[in-house]
Amino acid sequence: MVRAQQFGGNDLNTADVSDLILHVLFIVAIVAEAMTAALAAGRRSMDWVGVFLLGCATALGGGSVRDVLLDHHPLTWVQHPSYLIITGGAALATIAIARIVDHLRRLFLFLDAVGLVLFTIIGCNVATDLGMPFIVVIASGMITGCVGGVIRDILCNDIPLLFRTELYATISVVTGTLYVTGQWIGLDHGVATFTAMAVGLTLRLLALRFGWSMPKFVYTSDLH
Amino acid sequence: MVRAQQFGGNDLNTADVSDLILHVLFIVAIVAEAMTAALAAGRRSMDWVGVFLLGCATALGGGSVRDVLLDHHPLTWVQHPSYLIITGGAALATIAIARIVDHLRRLFLFLDAVGLVLFTIIGCNVATDLGMPFIVVIASGMITGCVGGVIRDILCNDIPLLFRTELYATISVVTGTLYVTGQWIGLDHGVATFTAMAVGLTLRLLALRFGWSMPKFVYTSDLH
Amino acid sequence: MVRAQQFGGNDLNTADVSDLILHVLFIVAIVAEAMTAALAAGRRSMDWVGVFLLGCATALGGGSVRDVLLDHHPLTWVQHPSYLIITGGAALATIAIARIVDHLRRLFLFLDAVGLVLFTIIGCNVATDLGMPFIVVIASGMITGCVGGVIRDILCNDIPLLFRTELYATISVVTGTLYVTGQWIGLDHGVATFTAMAVGLTLRLLALRFGWSMPKFVYTSDLH
Repeated sequence: MVRAQQFGGNDLNTADVSDLILHVLFIVAIVAEAMTAALAAGRRSMDWVGVFLLGCATALGGGSVRDVLLDHHPLTWVQHPSYLIITGGAALATIAIARIVDHLRRLFLFLDAVGLVLFTIIGCNVATDLGMPFIVVIASGMITGCVGGVIRDILCNDIPLLFRTELYATISVVTGTLYVTGQWIGLDHGVATFTAMAVGLTLRLLALRFGWSMPKFVYTSDLH
Repeated sequence: MVRAQQFGGNDLNTADVSDLILHVLFIVAIVAEAMTAALAAGRRSMDWVGVFLLGCATALGGGSVRDVLLDHHPLTWVQHPSYLIITGGAALATIAIARIVDHLRRLFLFLDAVGLVLFTIIGCNVATDLGMPFIVVIASGMITGCVGGVIRDILCNDIPLLFRTELYATISVVTGTLYVTGQWIGLDHGVATFTAMAVGLTLRLLALRFGWSMPKFVYTSDLH
Repeated sequence: MVRAQQFGGNDLNTADVSDLILHVLFIVAIVAEAMTAALAAGRRSMDWVGVFLLGCATALGGGSVRDVLLDHHPLTWVQHPSYLIITGGAALATIAIARIVDHLRRLFLFLDAVGLVLFTIIGCNVATDLGMPFIVVIASGMITGCVGGVIRDILCNDIPLLFRTELYATISVVTGTLYVTGQWIGLDHGVATFTAMAVGLTLRLLALRFGWSMPKFVYTSDLH
């Protein structure tokens, strides 16, 4: 997913270290997404199979939709099937430690925010490697960062949270734009990556802290 | 999407004009679909991001599903990313002019009907170009014409309207069959296109005017 | 779908017969799935078009999702468009004979179980032919066997049954594992197929008979 060549800088050692950090962050983020999805499954009294599957679909669904839309095969979990076990297993483990996960909600919101910006950058990278134009690169980042949660909400029979509240998609677009612009003006890949991630993460945490949200469009007359 | 070579007739000038008309109609139709979707978003109090995304997904979702199922890449919006801006922008603009859009509901129902038959023909064309058999060509037209609305309804957490009321899918099948048959009996491409569109559009407007609908299958006993 | 070369054994005649049996079973199973889906459509008062489409999507959706995720083209119904007519037609026929179908619910639950194990094995085969690793082969079997029902439930605006009750997915995983293991230890293809199907089918029928189900994860505190 976070392929070595994608994040390679000029200095090989620095590149190796930053690759390792990003790879560890990726695993932590998909685990956190799977565990948050497991709590959503528990609130709807799903069975253990549902918990496992919802964990996988939420953590890996965004990247899968991106790859299907951009014809980028094999999919992440097809190439790294262990991700299915890691995310499904993390979701199952959540059954045993649900109270703890819930008490650590601030930590999980933080990890979810890390996932959002990291997945966004991975998605931008995939589209850039495929030679896509700017708008598609940003869309690819947003799909990777946000669609997992949309799949979770559809499977839980909710209107996707993404469509109703949160600055989620907006922060993904800002992060992606910063990342692409950073590369375009000639920043080192690692510098562009970490700058975009830092800004996106800060924005997300500020949004959570101060309850920032997009204005709503409330309309009551019926067309049909 | 409406590629020049697809709609080329014998007379180059006529072909150019009919291509231009179809291209303008295509843009008008995706804008109309996005604006109608925006009203649906407003009825569920989605935020601006939700309005933007629902507009894109509704207007461009049918063609995307078709392309993914038929392995026809790149997708329309990947090749023409401006369509994302046009449809998302039209959805956002609807927030400011919702009352006007709602008062023009007859116009929008008309444009929606134009979209249905035009998308159907575009979908048939894509499958024909790929050498697909007749049934798949018709299915491709129907997916292109109808699935955008299904995606909108799923994201709005409704049972798809397509499955419950309207002659939508039926009109798409009739339009596609006329179009394919017209080409098969050797009609000029432009003639086949406009004949199929005219019949489909007339049927749709008659269905709207007289409230035609398919019979329902109402069943109350429980299998499970 | 059940291609001759996939199920070929050493003895050509035996292989031919077992291929024929599996092909007939496949048709019976997609018809049964489409008819069960039609009853679900009737319970939500869908119209005839909805019945037709829900029948197709339920019976053929699992294989389609598998093929899209694994980049395995053309899709089954693209290669065999008659399957669209068979499944959609079976769904429509159910409107006339709903009472009979409902009274034969035991038969349909049996045919649904046959479909589950057969689709699982077909899905495993597709992934094996593509040279996928073990976990992806099992996932491919499960997607083929179970996702049709998930699509049906999403289109009916329910939380997927797969996520809430039933041993469905579990039985698919057991069947797929037996089948792959059987081939790996050198069993004849036909023997591995029928052993896995027999065990999976028996498990499913026992689960139905004795009401076996996975434990549920019930969680009430709110994270958000």
